Amino acid sequence: MIANTPQAPYYAVIFSAVRTSENQGYAETNTFMNQLVTKQDGFLGMESAQSELGITISYWRDLEAIKTWKDDLDHKAAQIKGQKTWYSHYKVRIAKVERDYEFIK
Amino acid sequence: MIANTPQAPYYAVIFSAVRTSENQGYAETNTFMNQLVTKQDGFLGMESAQSELGITISYWRDLEAIKTWKDDLDHKAAQIKGQKTWYSHYKVRIAKVERDYEFIK
Repeated sequence: MIANTPQAPYYAVIFSAVRTSENQGYAETNTFMNQLVTKQDGFLGMESAQSELGITISYWRDLEAIKTWKDDLDHKAAQIKGQKTWYSHYKVRIAKVERDYEFIK
Repeated sequence: MIANTPQAPYYAVIFSAVRTSENQGYAETNTFMNQLVTKQDGFLGMESAQSELGITISYWRDLEAIKTWKDDLDHKAAQIKGQKTWYSHYKVRIAKVERDYEFIK
């Protein structure tokens, strides 16, 4: 569940979102996008948690890989559907992970 | 729920965690830490979501503010309790937010 990312530096795309009450097509698109993203060149992993707020973080090798994924046609269609239907508010942050550390019991 | 952060650049501390089944003292400490963190110099906001995985992201002005919060004595005590009791696995990533954009319906 916690992404096994390589040694820093690498990039994180933080997607924080508030959903509408409209679910139509959401689960299917979400599943499809989750499959598609793992096939992208430069994709390093993903973490997701959902309560009132939903947070999905994808990790990437570099900014070029992030841009290619952002411009993917199926992903673009999902973004448009997201704005029209599923999300009332979201914020995307592109961040360079400089350092990380881990605790495993 | 989505943090109203200032214009980039700023920093994000991504805390991704898997809990144990041990809840003793967790809610109280969590509430106390959430109150304490907002009083820190350089704290810019926080976002949190919890399902199988818990993700909490705090946003900061600079690395110095992050270090001061990491070394806060009450926070240190919570970190130790977290390792002993509440978490089976966590990862902390320190990342510089270079860019962000927002959608509001």
